[in-house]
Amino acid sequence: MDESETGRVEGEVKRVVEQAKELQDSTAAFIAKISGEEQSVRQRAAALDSSIRRLRSSIRSLLEHKLLDQKLFDKLDEELLRARFIITDGEASSFLPSKAQVGFLRMFLGPIDVRASKKDIQLKVKEEYNSYRDKTALLFLVFPSTLLMLRSWFWNGCLPAFPVQLYQAWLLFLYTGLALRENILRANGSDIRPWWIYHHYCAMVMALVSLTWDIKGQPNCAQKQRGVQLFLQWAIMQGVAMLLQNRYQRQRLYTRIALGKAKRMDVVWGETAGVDGQLWLLCPVLFIMQGFEAYVGMLLLKTAIAGVVSEWQVMFCGMLLVLMAVGNFVNTVQTLMTKSRFKAKMKKSKSKQELN
Amino acid sequence: MDESETGRVEGEVKRVVEQAKELQDSTAAFIAKISGEEQSVRQRAAALDSSIRRLRSSIRSLLEHKLLDQKLFDKLDEELLRARFIITDGEASSFLPSKAQVGFLRMFLGPIDVRASKKDIQLKVKEEYNSYRDKTALLFLVFPSTLLMLRSWFWNGCLPAFPVQLYQAWLLFLYTGLALRENILRANGSDIRPWWIYHHYCAMVMALVSLTWDIKGQPNCAQKQRGVQLFLQWAIMQGVAMLLQNRYQRQRLYTRIALGKAKRMDVVWGETAGVDGQLWLLCPVLFIMQGFEAYVGMLLLKTAIAGVVSEWQVMFCGMLLVLMAVGNFVNTVQTLMTKSRFKAKMKKSKSKQELN
Repeated sequence: MDESETGRVEGEVKRVVEQAKELQDSTAAFIAKISGEEQSVRQRAAALDSSIRRLRSSIRSLLEHKLLDQKLFDKLDEELLRARFIITDGEASSFLPSKAQVGFLRMFLGPIDVRASKKDIQLKVKEEYNSYRDKTALLFLVFPSTLLMLRSWFWNGCLPAFPVQLYQAWLLFLYTGLALRENILRANGSDIRPWWIYHHYCAMVMALVSLTWDIKGQPNCAQKQRGVQLFLQWAIMQGVAMLLQNRYQRQRLYTRIALGKAKRMDVVWGETAGVDGQLWLLCPVLFIMQGFEAYVGMLLLKTAIAGVVSEWQVMFCGMLLVLMAVGNFVNTVQTLMTKSRFKAKMKKSKSKQELN
Repeated sequence: MDESETGRVEGEVKRVVEQAKELQDSTAAFIAKISGEEQSVRQRAAALDSSIRRLRSSIRSLLEHKLLDQKLFDKLDEELLRARFIITDGEASSFLPSKAQVGFLRMFLGPIDVRASKKDIQLKVKEEYNSYRDKTALLFLVFPSTLLMLRSWFWNGCLPAFPVQLYQAWLLFLYTGLALRENILRANGSDIRPWWIYHHYCAMVMALVSLTWDIKGQPNCAQKQRGVQLFLQWAIMQGVAMLLQNRYQRQRLYTRIALGKAKRMDVVWGETAGVDGQLWLLCPVLFIMQGFEAYVGMLLLKTAIAGVVSEWQVMFCGMLLVLMAVGNFVNTVQTLMTKSRFKAKMKKSKSKQELN
């Protein structure tokens, strides 16, 4: 045995063990130090956040008691909003007290913290979400179209059960993923409207229920499968709408980021508006789609009530579709109204500035 | 209007805006500073980790070339393992290069980092996982037992479709949640065997497939529902096994933490062993359960091949069950062998110490 070689290796091993101990000690010290500083940043952010809330409500009450005129109120409120925006959109945002972890995330993931502490990671999450939506929209077009084409070309107007169930399983997976991601975006400060997340919960339930739905075969399957067929057509339309929306949404987001208006975590999923100038294209598509969604739902309900198909799934999916259509419609209208009110306000303050 | 009151409010608003700007600046500086230090800790941890790997392989090759005797090799290897343990189990662990995010988590959650940076949060995640398993095990007992009892008392030996499908949907949700949580634990440094995670992927697929499985009704449903009935009985057994395991697992973990032997993120889910002294109870239960799992699988296959039930789901679930039973068996045996080898080694080194 080569003594010097052995000695060298022994020495190296010893050194490595010491280095490991040093690393452990310095890391523990580092973590203790940043925990302390983090705590103090957290406290400052929370205190400031509550000061802003308090001041906003106190100027509102001053306005109501005529102790403040409208012009001064507008100015002060705008400044407070700007202060709020600085802490909620800047680096301090990850130190704000988190909204209680949403039940949905807790249910699937347990109590882990899904907030990214750095802005660049938050942005990465957001961008990945966008590209995920793009891929999804494409599949939303391709999957049901293929099924419908195969149906008329190869399957003699009669969908076999397996590919349809595969599609339904994919929908279930997709909506679960979307709901999880949107909850994560929300935890990271996105202003996504709660309805679009509830909408995906409904879609999850519907996909699950439709999996238990027996796909009837021959004879006379054109009539029995009417519901499935309508549903697939509606899915194709949704694919088109999603592609349109994604493009506009992204453009709008980039424009707004460039203008410094938007929080970068803003997501407006689902049936809300795109770039203003292109609303004339998107809005009709959205409303037609919502109408068609309600129509499919009503048709299913009619089938169930008339007793053509006696399964509870038909009734249930019909009701869910109608509910989702109504919710989508209400939320789209609300978004449009907020938008136009915001625009009117912008115009007013702009013309005021020009007058001054 | 009260001038002094207005002035006071205006001043306060101004101060709040300034504080917000200050907070933003100091937070940005804080984040930049810790990012820099984090980077250096990360580099040190990665360098040390690769040194340890390199040294371990070089002493192994020295041993093979007879340049090192077995005794010295054992000593050096043990020291290197200890060094590795210090960095993988200590505070430095969260700065080690992460294993590439598992595809499963990426698929559902996108690219968020699920690693907790602090040991106490990691522990919380682990403990919540344990209590989740406890609740689950209880439901695993109650849900199928209730179904089977209602079947013989109220439903005249014929299970209605809806409650069974509800149970299957619950299984799908449960296994998805478990698979997500286990992947998160793994990302946080747990040594859970990959098989138990794959096992849950299989179980997810099976729950999904079983949802599309038509639950046949009268007449003669006792024969047609034989598969479902066996499956429910197997689920009850699994509930018992899980309860036993959870108790032993937890005891063992606490003992090992107390002895400083275990990484606190250790999870041994599924059909592996508990406290050594109580293995005589757990092992037979596990092996009987695996045998029963394989038996149910074979029975389903037989039904499918004999053509009693012609659906593909029967064949598919049968194969999955057999596959899962074999995998569970192999992994349980491997775990037991590792355990006994470890014990033998411990005894050897203990008796050596006593000799010295």
